[in-house]
Amino acid sequence: MKTLTQKYIEVRERTGLICQNLQIEDYTPQSAVFASPPKWHIAHVTWFFEEMILKKHKSDHKLFDPNFGFLFNSYYNSIGERIERHHRGLLTRPKIEEVYKFRTYVDQAMVTLLESNCTEEIEALTILGINHEQQHQELLLTDIKYTLSKNPLYPKLFQKNLVSHHNTQKGWLTVDEGIYQIGHQENSFCFDNELGVHRVFLEPFQISKSLVTCGEYLEFIAAEGYTKPEYWLDEAWFWINDNQIKQPLYWKQVDDTWYHYTLSGLQPIDKNAILTHISFYEASAYAQWKAVRLPTEFEWEVASKDLEWGTHWEWTNSAYLPYPNFKTAEGAVGEYNGKFMINQMVLRGASYATAPGHSRHTYRNFFHPQYQWQYTGIRLAK
Amino acid sequence: MKTLTQKYIEVRERTGLICQNLQIEDYTPQSAVFASPPKWHIAHVTWFFEEMILKKHKSDHKLFDPNFGFLFNSYYNSIGERIERHHRGLLTRPKIEEVYKFRTYVDQAMVTLLESNCTEEIEALTILGINHEQQHQELLLTDIKYTLSKNPLYPKLFQKNLVSHHNTQKGWLTVDEGIYQIGHQENSFCFDNELGVHRVFLEPFQISKSLVTCGEYLEFIAAEGYTKPEYWLDEAWFWINDNQIKQPLYWKQVDDTWYHYTLSGLQPIDKNAILTHISFYEASAYAQWKAVRLPTEFEWEVASKDLEWGTHWEWTNSAYLPYPNFKTAEGAVGEYNGKFMINQMVLRGASYATAPGHSRHTYRNFFHPQYQWQYTGIRLAK
Amino acid sequence: MKTLTQKYIEVRERTGLICQNLQIEDYTPQSAVFASPPKWHIAHVTWFFEEMILKKHKSDHKLFDPNFGFLFNSYYNSIGERIERHHRGLLTRPKIEEVYKFRTYVDQAMVTLLESNCTEEIEALTILGINHEQQHQELLLTDIKYTLSKNPLYPKLFQKNLVSHHNTQKGWLTVDEGIYQIGHQENSFCFDNELGVHRVFLEPFQISKSLVTCGEYLEFIAAEGYTKPEYWLDEAWFWINDNQIKQPLYWKQVDDTWYHYTLSGLQPIDKNAILTHISFYEASAYAQWKAVRLPTEFEWEVASKDLEWGTHWEWTNSAYLPYPNFKTAEGAVGEYNGKFMINQMVLRGASYATAPGHSRHTYRNFFHPQYQWQYTGIRLAK
Amino acid sequence: MKTLTQKYIEVRERTGLICQNLQIEDYTPQSAVFASPPKWHIAHVTWFFEEMILKKHKSDHKLFDPNFGFLFNSYYNSIGERIERHHRGLLTRPKIEEVYKFRTYVDQAMVTLLESNCTEEIEALTILGINHEQQHQELLLTDIKYTLSKNPLYPKLFQKNLVSHHNTQKGWLTVDEGIYQIGHQENSFCFDNELGVHRVFLEPFQISKSLVTCGEYLEFIAAEGYTKPEYWLDEAWFWINDNQIKQPLYWKQVDDTWYHYTLSGLQPIDKNAILTHISFYEASAYAQWKAVRLPTEFEWEVASKDLEWGTHWEWTNSAYLPYPNFKTAEGAVGEYNGKFMINQMVLRGASYATAPGHSRHTYRNFFHPQYQWQYTGIRLAK
Repeated sequence: MKTLTQKYIEVRERTGLICQNLQIEDYTPQSAVFASPPKWHIAHVTWFFEEMILKKHKSDHKLFDPNFGFLFNSYYNSIGERIERHHRGLLTRPKIEEVYKFRTYVDQAMVTLLESNCTEEIEALTILGINHEQQHQELLLTDIKYTLSKNPLYPKLFQKNLVSHHNTQKGWLTVDEGIYQIGHQENSFCFDNELGVHRVFLEPFQISKSLVTCGEYLEFIAAEGYTKPEYWLDEAWFWINDNQIKQPLYWKQVDDTWYHYTLSGLQPIDKNAILTHISFYEASAYAQWKAVRLPTEFEWEVASKDLEWGTHWEWTNSAYLPYPNFKTAEGAVGEYNGKFMINQMVLRGASYATAPGHSRHTYRNFFHPQYQWQYTGIRLAK
Repeated sequence: MKTLTQKYIEVRERTGLICQNLQIEDYTPQSAVFASPPKWHIAHVTWFFEEMILKKHKSDHKLFDPNFGFLFNSYYNSIGERIERHHRGLLTRPKIEEVYKFRTYVDQAMVTLLESNCTEEIEALTILGINHEQQHQELLLTDIKYTLSKNPLYPKLFQKNLVSHHNTQKGWLTVDEGIYQIGHQENSFCFDNELGVHRVFLEPFQISKSLVTCGEYLEFIAAEGYTKPEYWLDEAWFWINDNQIKQPLYWKQVDDTWYHYTLSGLQPIDKNAILTHISFYEASAYAQWKAVRLPTEFEWEVASKDLEWGTHWEWTNSAYLPYPNFKTAEGAVGEYNGKFMINQMVLRGASYATAPGHSRHTYRNFFHPQYQWQYTGIRLAK
Repeated sequence: MKTLTQKYIEVRERTGLICQNLQIEDYTPQSAVFASPPKWHIAHVTWFFEEMILKKHKSDHKLFDPNFGFLFNSYYNSIGERIERHHRGLLTRPKIEEVYKFRTYVDQAMVTLLESNCTEEIEALTILGINHEQQHQELLLTDIKYTLSKNPLYPKLFQKNLVSHHNTQKGWLTVDEGIYQIGHQENSFCFDNELGVHRVFLEPFQISKSLVTCGEYLEFIAAEGYTKPEYWLDEAWFWINDNQIKQPLYWKQVDDTWYHYTLSGLQPIDKNAILTHISFYEASAYAQWKAVRLPTEFEWEVASKDLEWGTHWEWTNSAYLPYPNFKTAEGAVGEYNGKFMINQMVLRGASYATAPGHSRHTYRNFFHPQYQWQYTGIRLAK
Repeated sequence: MKTLTQKYIEVRERTGLICQNLQIEDYTPQSAVFASPPKWHIAHVTWFFEEMILKKHKSDHKLFDPNFGFLFNSYYNSIGERIERHHRGLLTRPKIEEVYKFRTYVDQAMVTLLESNCTEEIEALTILGINHEQQHQELLLTDIKYTLSKNPLYPKLFQKNLVSHHNTQKGWLTVDEGIYQIGHQENSFCFDNELGVHRVFLEPFQISKSLVTCGEYLEFIAAEGYTKPEYWLDEAWFWINDNQIKQPLYWKQVDDTWYHYTLSGLQPIDKNAILTHISFYEASAYAQWKAVRLPTEFEWEVASKDLEWGTHWEWTNSAYLPYPNFKTAEGAVGEYNGKFMINQMVLRGASYATAPGHSRHTYRNFFHPQYQWQYTGIRLAK
């Protein structure tokens, strides 16, 4: 089994691998308030280790640069002032080269600390930092894609398109009514929002063994689904009209053919591939059109051991709310999850962009219902 | 027992009573996108009877004015075009006198229909229309208050302030774990969002027998609760800062004394009275400060038979989502509830402004978390 | 010749005549930030007399209501706080009846003052107040029209449409080069922005004897003028696209016929009538399409004695800027004109809605280039 | 005397010199809608030569990349679609290296063309392109400064601060009344907005021989000039309040000392240095406070031969409008100046950032009254 140091190094190296095809120009711009520049992600996850671990637990640690706290704090109000979120793309300095030096500097200090004096608290924080970095690895991929998609040249980052998964199962899985245990119960890492193991009663339900495909969704478009208010939540209807949404993000119709932008450039759509880059609003409208519904996060968790999942985050019809007995940790770490428990919907599963081993069947991902830029998909229930 | 006709007349008359002190000038303006002018409310609830019942079920019915559909449709996409929500305050015509004629005209037709030819469908739609009008009666009061509050003269609509309730019970009610039945089970009217009776498992919990008072909330203000991010949901923190929220709606500090605007003018705050006009964001922050939480709507429903309630809508920590087996009705009536099931929080109970007999312990009210203009209050749980 | 008291009474009565067909409901709403409610106009012009004259010059004067200063101050920063401009439509109180009592009260006090103790300063301020009220009389008409136009019922305020003037002259007037005297030189009232008589050198020019007609403007529309960027100023091009402007304000095409909303309802457009409700942006684009230009305000002033004018305000290509030696008066009266001398264009002439005798050939009206709701027209020059 | 080819090469090289200290990261981000990224400027001025000259006049010219028209067109509607202005900062590709290759490619083609087959039209367009590039050189400096100023690290681009000019003259210059000739009359290059030589009559005036210094402006701040509405134009008053403007751009008070951000980092303010980065609104308020005024552009032009100027653009109180007989050129080149003649104020002179030899005493620069990011200053008149 891997040591914590090995695990640390492996995850840190994966961030570098994700960025290996980036040009220096790609690291700085921010293409939307909800997306962050690669340079910011890379520095921020490093700052997390320095701020949360080295500063407090490594007595001789000298900060690499005291300004970095201001620059690369994300949203921790308890730690202090930070640059405004929508200004992250203006940080032309420090240079990316400098940020990579910062990474190396912190990695050396972390490895020294882990090898010499690793208390339980340090171990716990390091594991949290590793998982935190894995989350940003996924955002790196989705944010880079979003920025590159704004470029009329349709740049290619990778030679081959990694996202083109097909379902291998069909039909509906039936689950019986009953009291089920929900939440993380094992003796391994999880986020605080998965804790508070509790019982939930589920009425009997059926859940699809497959995710909706591009071809199936094209039928919804062909049926003029985007112009019929009866399928849409009220706010969804305003959203598609105000933003002129007529298809999933990155889709583009040229003459009679549908294409989508991918990290390997503009590609024709494969009708048998699993649909992705869909908002909750669209997922909900599609389900309404099909006269079925989306599963709740509890139904998903219970059914997940019998289902094929892991290539797309699956929107559930559960709002992101605390479990009974949810506790917020003291201090900055306590700002990790709890304060976002409003106006967001839970996604379950994992995606192609998720770091290997990062997710699990109790994992609770969450986004606002209008966002499309994650690798999201639709699974139906009834 | 009252006949349906009697019930119809009684509810229709109550709308007139609510408006009896209004001046003609008060009927037209709209003070916020979320609030509607009294004239619009009065015409809209009447239009509902004409559009949903008379037009279809009274063969000889002549529309009072064919333009009124366009003017007074609220949000029924399936019925056709309507004026934009934020333009409701520009309707200086028809005159309020004309709108009252419209009411009389529809009332005569409705009574004729109910007395002569009342099928089960008509009965059901009439009961829906009555309940719909009761909902707008509450909005009439809250919207009028909101508009009058914008007037630096602090106008008085009523001689005495109706909202100054005190708790009569204290302490915590303990509820055991178990499977509970949720939803409307009786053979009487309810909204579609209460249907789909289903079982819910509740972990053991305690719920407060009293609502938070003004005096208790003043302690939160005195403790600088509005300036400490650790108590606030992330979006709440932005909301209070962007909107400079530093106290409940209608509160105003003059020298060292706290006042609040009421429908009987500006009044000093009674510390023992139950707090009202509070957003979910504030309710949540207050609970966080107290190191407890808000109840879920299921906990509330189970505990409600042992609790004193009915003077203030109580924010729960449940998002407004469909019950299992929730069904949307066909046609325009189906737009009543389901399409709002996103980004809103459930409130349970009733308020001083709720029409007598309108609410019940399965009733699900819902608003966005930032709204303060309803008669809302805080009940804690743990 | 009329006495000042007679003139005062006559102008004050004209305000009442303009409003005689209004319903109580019409007095309160505000349909745009740039427009004010009739009740506000009526109270504001009255407040002007009380604030600027009675308060200071009538020793025994009691304010009708001390709150009215806050409610009906328009933009005089030096006088104190006032309600925000876009909240004027929320003043359901005082009632219009009360505002008319305020008028009567002030009129009695003014007449007493004028008849008993009229110093030169009082006389000057009264004349300013009279001219101020005449300006608001024009705004009353244009603002009422704007609000009523938002009503899908197309209400009629007057039985016959007052605006349908035809040109009686044709061709071009030629003016020689030379040094001309500009500004008000007579011994009669004028606004401060007309003062500072000064010399201007004009190169020779030609100016049209007629204003552009609806029929001529329809040719511009037919030539797809609204879709061709080469005719439009850059900000104008954004303005027509952002606001979907495709015709003059109040115009509406039904099948193949063009209509416009007037104070006597929706009427077919008379091609020979003079075009009105046109922004500077549109006037400029039309001139560009015709390969000519708009006159400067100096050209207009020099040519005006030989021209027919007075039914439409005529956009000039002069920005609203101070004349040499322009002086701002001390105190609140000094806020009348000078502080608006930025980002506005000068209009010369007068319109059907201008109070008789109010304008003159040195009069400088001014509006932002995008506004269409005044009775504006186009005169060409070259 | 230099040949056109020499001049071409010299100006093109100066662009490279301006950027020599930039890091690759600095080239891409856009820090405001009104500012453009360095990469965009560099590519755009190059595209101008390819689009306006090589494409039409060099028969064998192959476009470097056909997509560049879409990417680097600024505002020429007649040439075709272009990316939205506020998206210029998202162009991570082409890389800056590629853009420099584009420059070299176009330079080689241009030199070949100029040396072999330089018609009068090519010569005229090349001179226009050179002047166009010089204008962007100034914007490069001001836009880079604006972006770097957003960085909390206060980066230094140059070792020494280039902007710290002192007045060498004092007192007022008196100019007599008379008819003066305005506009470019020489047989050399000028922009179309300087043409249309015409006569203007000026009343006698006095104009300051010096520009306002930082120390003088600090007196205005100390006198609470930013909180007194009587000094401000109405729109200026809203602007300073909405944007919390309390000092010139880049100024920052730390304890009791005033600093300003410069391209050589944060520096203490030199009270004797000439004030810069001031909006028209502030210039106008300062003049009002001093009970004098800004000169008109005609006064400036007449006085300029007796004045010291060239380190700061000087706001005039003239709106940017066409001269009599102003003609717009045919085609894309005609979009250069005329379409911006609305809502902008004229600046005269030149600044430290202006390319040597670029400006002249008839030169008309123009910006909206709220902009501060150019090297602007204040000269008074009376």
